[in-house]
Amino acid sequence: MKRVFSNIGQLQTATGSAAVCGKAQNELKTLSDAWILEENGVIAAVGTGAAPTADETVDCRKKLVTPGLVDCHTHLVFGGWREHELAMKLQGKTYLEILAAGGGILSTVRETRKASEDALYEKTRDLFLEMLACGTTAVEVKSGYGLDLETERKQLRVVRRLKEEFGDVASTFLGAHAFPEGMDHEAYVNWLCETAIPTIAEDGLADFCDAFCDEGVFTAEQSLHILNAGKRFGMVPKLHADEIKEIGGTQAAARVGAISCDHLSETGEEGIKALRDGGVIAVMLPATSFYLKKPYGNFRGMIDAGVPVAVATDMNPGSTPNLSLPFAMTAGCLYGLLTPSEMLTAATLNGAAAIGMAKTLGTLEPGKQADLVVWDADNLDQLIYRYGTNRAAAVFKRGVRMTGKENLWNA
Amino acid sequence: MKRVFSNIGQLQTATGSAAVCGKAQNELKTLSDAWILEENGVIAAVGTGAAPTADETVDCRKKLVTPGLVDCHTHLVFGGWREHELAMKLQGKTYLEILAAGGGILSTVRETRKASEDALYEKTRDLFLEMLACGTTAVEVKSGYGLDLETERKQLRVVRRLKEEFGDVASTFLGAHAFPEGMDHEAYVNWLCETAIPTIAEDGLADFCDAFCDEGVFTAEQSLHILNAGKRFGMVPKLHADEIKEIGGTQAAARVGAISCDHLSETGEEGIKALRDGGVIAVMLPATSFYLKKPYGNFRGMIDAGVPVAVATDMNPGSTPNLSLPFAMTAGCLYGLLTPSEMLTAATLNGAAAIGMAKTLGTLEPGKQADLVVWDADNLDQLIYRYGTNRAAAVFKRGVRMTGKENLWNA
Repeated sequence: MKRVFSNIGQLQTATGSAAVCGKAQNELKTLSDAWILEENGVIAAVGTGAAPTADETVDCRKKLVTPGLVDCHTHLVFGGWREHELAMKLQGKTYLEILAAGGGILSTVRETRKASEDALYEKTRDLFLEMLACGTTAVEVKSGYGLDLETERKQLRVVRRLKEEFGDVASTFLGAHAFPEGMDHEAYVNWLCETAIPTIAEDGLADFCDAFCDEGVFTAEQSLHILNAGKRFGMVPKLHADEIKEIGGTQAAARVGAISCDHLSETGEEGIKALRDGGVIAVMLPATSFYLKKPYGNFRGMIDAGVPVAVATDMNPGSTPNLSLPFAMTAGCLYGLLTPSEMLTAATLNGAAAIGMAKTLGTLEPGKQADLVVWDADNLDQLIYRYGTNRAAAVFKRGVRMTGKENLWNA
Repeated sequence: MKRVFSNIGQLQTATGSAAVCGKAQNELKTLSDAWILEENGVIAAVGTGAAPTADETVDCRKKLVTPGLVDCHTHLVFGGWREHELAMKLQGKTYLEILAAGGGILSTVRETRKASEDALYEKTRDLFLEMLACGTTAVEVKSGYGLDLETERKQLRVVRRLKEEFGDVASTFLGAHAFPEGMDHEAYVNWLCETAIPTIAEDGLADFCDAFCDEGVFTAEQSLHILNAGKRFGMVPKLHADEIKEIGGTQAAARVGAISCDHLSETGEEGIKALRDGGVIAVMLPATSFYLKKPYGNFRGMIDAGVPVAVATDMNPGSTPNLSLPFAMTAGCLYGLLTPSEMLTAATLNGAAAIGMAKTLGTLEPGKQADLVVWDADNLDQLIYRYGTNRAAAVFKRGVRMTGKENLWNA
């Protein structure tokens, strides 16, 4: 079956099959009056002018078309919500006071332990469908709300079910998200390395291994220990670093050969150099900064140094319950001073590269999967500028329409 | 025809028919397991437990129900967009450089002058439908992109058409939005008072008169002159003030008896006192602050002093092209430290009061119009906390469903 996407007002895409950095992040391929020919879920050809004939035509009504967005850092599997902490925070309660009142991450751990796998799956699926409706066609999902083997595996099975239903879902084991209550820190790190990681690897449940390396959580040394254990069992390392304070996370990420280092809102020049020299992708999370009222990080310093920059939502019930990657893109442009073109690369090709999917996803080029979004926008600037409401008119995955508010089918 | 909204998990509403201030802004009426009986577009009764029978039942599926939101400050009628200014701003261009490149407010004036009334209406209607889908059921719309009689009247006729189609649309004459190119300032003020206002009043095109009182725009004295002229012709005064700098706008608003004073991101203690003593509603515009990266203003100081606080989007093509009032509510809670309850009052009853509609709109009480939103949220905290995507499951105006993503009808 051949399908043609015709009458594309503006097609904008990064190019290639690997993360891009520096000036290249701003260099998109831009076509006006364009078309895309899809066959069996894969892009067969891209061109301008008269569209080729096909079995089916999608009239894109002169709108902007981009690759499907790739959200490369989310915590999408969790029990409960934590909306009541908002009121406490607004009253000036500290995080420690919220913890004492039964809130904080350990309350999500309790709720996630209690929830059935089926209930977690229904909820995660609903959240993913909302993301999809906003233009996200591939996603990474972390565990980390179990902190015990049973619950971490339950979370990762939910991720596997999501992958089975929708495809292009990366799974990350984040047992090192926090220390469980009443357990010695060294003992927990050893248990992660010697019991949890081997067991999860045996079940094939995780593509990536991650740790929260920051003040009050895991040290750089502990993080290295955990990521190296994951690596021995075939899990590609990732690292949360520099969200609260620089404690050597970027250097640890570079040393272990992490594919990405995420958060980085406090990263200084030395950290940026470490990422560049290690070939690590910087995953920036501007929606988290918005919600926590914290610094956004030095996006421009990363770009200028030649670090490939990706962007993600960080969706989670504590620090940013936002499912919209376009909102994160707008916040990242405004507060990180990226251009809309640099940001599109960050949210597509570089996001795909941060989860090992850049060979098949992230650009609109022959041979890539036909994951694309028709936006209710005339151009890329408008997509970033008209923030606050969903501009995705129709979202296609492997050429098939998944969701959308307008009827774009011709025949 | 009687319609009952049954199975409401949580009903939250401010109460009364006038703006509320101080502690009262935080005191909502909250009902669990509630129902609302509507007859001929008006709320006949509100209760809990077993719902009365009616001709039609809407099953609210245990979700949160609030009054329809009232967006009391928008610039919804304009030609063109200004998305290309975003890239210039991100490159560090100043507003004067953007003006020199043909951008800024006067470019919107050029585009609005060029556009036909029908084209403007179609565009404004589309924008309003997006707002409605996000929960806004009543709106104020300003002119101010004509700065000549023909275009200002064209804008206000578009507002009148919107009111004829949807009802509950307040129209505001904002000829004093900027000075037109090549015209003496004093001459323009005189023309506004002696020609524009009388002519527009004769056509019955404006409920309110407004001016942009700030550094580099209209002085407090000029603003007073204009608002007093409007008042003589039956237009209720409003005022843009303290967005850039305090130049006496709050005092002018109090002195002329303005119903509201809007923006106020730079307002200090003296200004807050002036608003309180004048009984002026403070309309805060947090989405503008987010987009412009400017201060949000002293929301808590206003509440604590007893100034009634309302919130609005300020939707416009220059300083904040966002249509979602819920996004403004979240930003206002986070950065203005309002509680979700204070914010709901700000976005419903106090918004209605700021456009003279508090007698019929803004609360869910017998006798009020049945404008309400069923939210995909379990409670009010969740509505504010789950920002970024549209949580309005169904929006009803005068009891009639206008828009929504879920089928809530029973029979």
